Amino acid sequence: MSQGLFISFEGIDGSGKSTQARLLAETLREMGRDVVLTREPGGSAGAEEIRALVLQGEPDRWSPETELLLFTAARRDHLERTIRPALAAGQIVICDRFADSTRMYQGRNGLRPEVDALHDLMIGMEPDLTLLVDMDPAAGLARAKARATAEERFEDFGLPLQEQMREGFLALSREFPARFAVIEGNQSIETVAQDILSVVKTRL
Amino acid sequence: MSQGLFISFEGIDGSGKSTQARLLAETLREMGRDVVLTREPGGSAGAEEIRALVLQGEPDRWSPETELLLFTAARRDHLERTIRPALAAGQIVICDRFADSTRMYQGRNGLRPEVDALHDLMIGMEPDLTLLVDMDPAAGLARAKARATAEERFEDFGLPLQEQMREGFLALSREFPARFAVIEGNQSIETVAQDILSVVKTRL
Repeated sequence: MSQGLFISFEGIDGSGKSTQARLLAETLREMGRDVVLTREPGGSAGAEEIRALVLQGEPDRWSPETELLLFTAARRDHLERTIRPALAAGQIVICDRFADSTRMYQGRNGLRPEVDALHDLMIGMEPDLTLLVDMDPAAGLARAKARATAEERFEDFGLPLQEQMREGFLALSREFPARFAVIEGNQSIETVAQDILSVVKTRL
Repeated sequence: MSQGLFISFEGIDGSGKSTQARLLAETLREMGRDVVLTREPGGSAGAEEIRALVLQGEPDRWSPETELLLFTAARRDHLERTIRPALAAGQIVICDRFADSTRMYQGRNGLRPEVDALHDLMIGMEPDLTLLVDMDPAAGLARAKARATAEERFEDFGLPLQEQMREGFLALSREFPARFAVIEGNQSIETVAQDILSVVKTRL
């Protein structure tokens, strides 16, 4: 039986990470691997309900601190109900966003100490491999705006903020070099997918 | 302007604490005080939604850890949106259950360290006065069963567990002697209310 492997995708909105997560899952399945494709916030029945509670309604409905607690609750549920059981069964878990997104989005505005303390206390787990799809902020923003949905709060950033986010993700890749792989996202979907598969194969 | 005062009521199910919280609010209002009567879990629009998410559905729907995070999120919202603004405006806040209930109910099964760490990190505030309505566990259980509602999960304890809860609350009163007052609940409603008012008057 193959060993479980936990892979997360991170990147700014419009970076193509969700598409790439799906493509990687398809390719690994074609290779005969048992894959669970999941996402955050959400990824389990309870966590999806918490996601809806957080993302619907007015943008200032929750304070940054309450939002952080809700996202941590959702992650805990996702970990218990989806990720850990899949890894224990030897499956490959591919997760569209994980704790690094919280470090970025909820960690802004001085909350990074709280983000880290909550993670250590209630989550205590990192992916084996984090694929950061690094994308030109202007191109990412254009893509994200073209497909804006009801959950627009995460897309509702101007270019300066997208640039900050890109820099923030790159800073995380330097903070956690052992598990991060930075993928050049400004290429065709097929080429990005090949680059990703090359990295993943070294971990299988 | 009178100074803000934060009073919590604690006790086992069926102890009469909710009735006493309401009576105290009425009496203080008759005395001309500006009172906010609230409750946990809940007490603000967002926290009430989290309450519904936690308390509805199957009892094993959430793990103890996820439940603790959701209750802490609800408390943070309640604190920001209801309690702190009221205290800042000089009002008396009377809250039916607060963090001591979490120490008791979520702190069981070895989770007290996580309860305390989350409280220190994200709440960081205690009531000025905590009124523990101490009640014979068998009498409390009979009362609680007589009025069982859709939110039965908190009532669904047998007598041995009610006895443990009573002891646990008394232990908390010894842990935090400066803010706890233990009220003899095995008396008429009127007498209990008088005893409570005597204690509260010393803090006004």
